[in-house]
Amino acid sequence: MSGIRVGGYLKKRKKLIDSALNLYLPKESEYPQVINKAMRYSVFPGGKRIRPILLLASCEACGGDAKEALPAACAIEIIHTYSLIHDDLPAMDNDDYRRGKLTSHKKFGEAIAVLTGDALLTYGIELLTYGDKPKLHLDAIKDVLNAIGTYGMIGGQVVDINRQREVDLPTLTYINAHKTGALIASSCKVGGIIAGASKRRLNALERYGEYIGFTFQIIDDILDKDGFALAFGIGGARREAVRLIEKAKEELDIFGKKSSALRGLADYILNRKK
Amino acid sequence: MSGIRVGGYLKKRKKLIDSALNLYLPKESEYPQVINKAMRYSVFPGGKRIRPILLLASCEACGGDAKEALPAACAIEIIHTYSLIHDDLPAMDNDDYRRGKLTSHKKFGEAIAVLTGDALLTYGIELLTYGDKPKLHLDAIKDVLNAIGTYGMIGGQVVDINRQREVDLPTLTYINAHKTGALIASSCKVGGIIAGASKRRLNALERYGEYIGFTFQIIDDILDKDGFALAFGIGGARREAVRLIEKAKEELDIFGKKSSALRGLADYILNRKK
Repeated sequence: MSGIRVGGYLKKRKKLIDSALNLYLPKESEYPQVINKAMRYSVFPGGKRIRPILLLASCEACGGDAKEALPAACAIEIIHTYSLIHDDLPAMDNDDYRRGKLTSHKKFGEAIAVLTGDALLTYGIELLTYGDKPKLHLDAIKDVLNAIGTYGMIGGQVVDINRQREVDLPTLTYINAHKTGALIASSCKVGGIIAGASKRRLNALERYGEYIGFTFQIIDDILDKDGFALAFGIGGARREAVRLIEKAKEELDIFGKKSSALRGLADYILNRKK
Repeated sequence: MSGIRVGGYLKKRKKLIDSALNLYLPKESEYPQVINKAMRYSVFPGGKRIRPILLLASCEACGGDAKEALPAACAIEIIHTYSLIHDDLPAMDNDDYRRGKLTSHKKFGEAIAVLTGDALLTYGIELLTYGDKPKLHLDAIKDVLNAIGTYGMIGGQVVDINRQREVDLPTLTYINAHKTGALIASSCKVGGIIAGASKRRLNALERYGEYIGFTFQIIDDILDKDGFALAFGIGGARREAVRLIEKAKEELDIFGKKSSALRGLADYILNRKK
C-alpha cells in the first residue's frame, strides 16, 4: 500500500470505527446524563484511531471479517480513552488540554473525570463480550486485561510517574513497552483472536504489534525531541525506528497478500508527522 | 442457621476468602512494587467480606462447589475495594480514613490511589475469567460489568455526588439500588452462574440480592441516622427492613434446604450492628 492509498484507507476506517463507537456508547439523553456526555466528550472526535484500525487489519490478515471485530476494535479505543483521561488528571500529568480541547477534569470536574475513566474501562471490557464465540471472547478479554493491568499499561504508568528526570535506558524501555506498547500489541493480537487464528499467527501479530508500538514511541520522541531522541540522537533514533519496522514486516510474511494493510500501517507509523 | 452459628460460619468463610485473595493478588515483591503494595494495603485486612460470602453461599444453594467459585468471589471483593478507593479520593468524598486506617491516597498519594483503583478493577475482572467453562465465565463477566457500569454502581455514584443535601425519596432509592445494591445482587447471581443454575434460579438469586442489598443500606442509614432513617423515622425504616428480609427469604423457597446459609445471611444483614 503506497502512502497516498494508506491515507484514504485510514480515513475510511476511522469513519467506520467512529460510527460504531457512536452506536455502542450510551446515548447522552440517558440518565444520569452527565456521565454519558462526559464519555462521549472524550471519545469524540478522538485521534487517528490507530489501535482499532490495527485490530481490524489484523483480523483481516487472518482471513476474518472486520465487521465481526468492530465491537473489539471500539473496546480498545474506549479503553485507550480511559487511560488518557486518568493520565491527564491533576494528580498525574495535570494537563488542561488534549487534542486541542479541554481535558475531561477541566470540562466536567475531577470527580466526574475519574468516574468517566472508570466507566470507559468498564464499558470497553463489556464490548469485548459482544459476539457468539464465548471461548474467543474470553481469550480476547484475558489478553487485553493483561495488557492494561499492572503487568502492562498500569505498570508502565506507575514507573513513569515515579521516574527521575534523567531516566536510564532500561527504565525508558520498560515504560514505553508497558505504557504504550502493550495495548498496541494486544490490539493486533485480539484482531487475530476474533478471526480464530492459530497460535503461530497470534504470536506473529503480537511481535508485529510490539515492534510497531516501540516505533510509535520512538517517532513520538523524535517529534517531541524527548526520550529515545535524547538518548540516541535524532539520527540514531531514526535508524532504530527503520530497523524495527523491517522486523515488524518480517513477521507478516506468513500472512501473504492479506497483510498488505498491516504493511502499509507499519510504514505509516514510521513516517507520520504527528 | 441461628445467630451464633452464623458468627462461626462468617469467620470461617472470611478466612477462606482472605487466603484466596492473598494467593491471587500479585506479590508485593513484584516490580513495580508500589502498586502491588497499594493494592494489598486496601484489600487487607478488609471488612466482613459480605459480598464474596454471599457469592459462595449462592453457588452452594444451586448445588455448586464453593471452591470453583472462589476466584469469582475474590473478584467481587477486589472490585468492591476499587470502588472504595476511588470514592475516598479528594475530588469525591475526600476521606482520610477507612476502616480505621489511612485511605489509599493519604498513604500512597493521589496518583497511585487512582492507579490502584484502576488496577483492582482490571484485576478483579481478570479473576472472573479463571476456570474452564468459557460460556459461564463470560455470563458472569457480563453481569458484573453491567452491575458496576453507568447502569449500575457508577450511575449511582454520579447521582450521589451531584445530589442536593435534601434529597427526595426516588433519588435516594436510585442511589442505593445502583451504588450499593447492584453489586450485591450481582454477587448472588454470579454464584448461581458459576454453579450452572437455571434462569429461574438466577432470577430468584438476583431478587434475593436486591432485597438484602436494599436492607443493607437501610440498616446503614439507621445506624448512621441518615437517608431512609430520616425519611421514614427509625421505626418506619426498621419495619421496611423486616419486610424486605421476609421478601428476600421467600425467593429462597425454590432452593430448599441448601439455602440455609443464605437465610442466615439475610437475618445477619437485618440484625447487624455495624
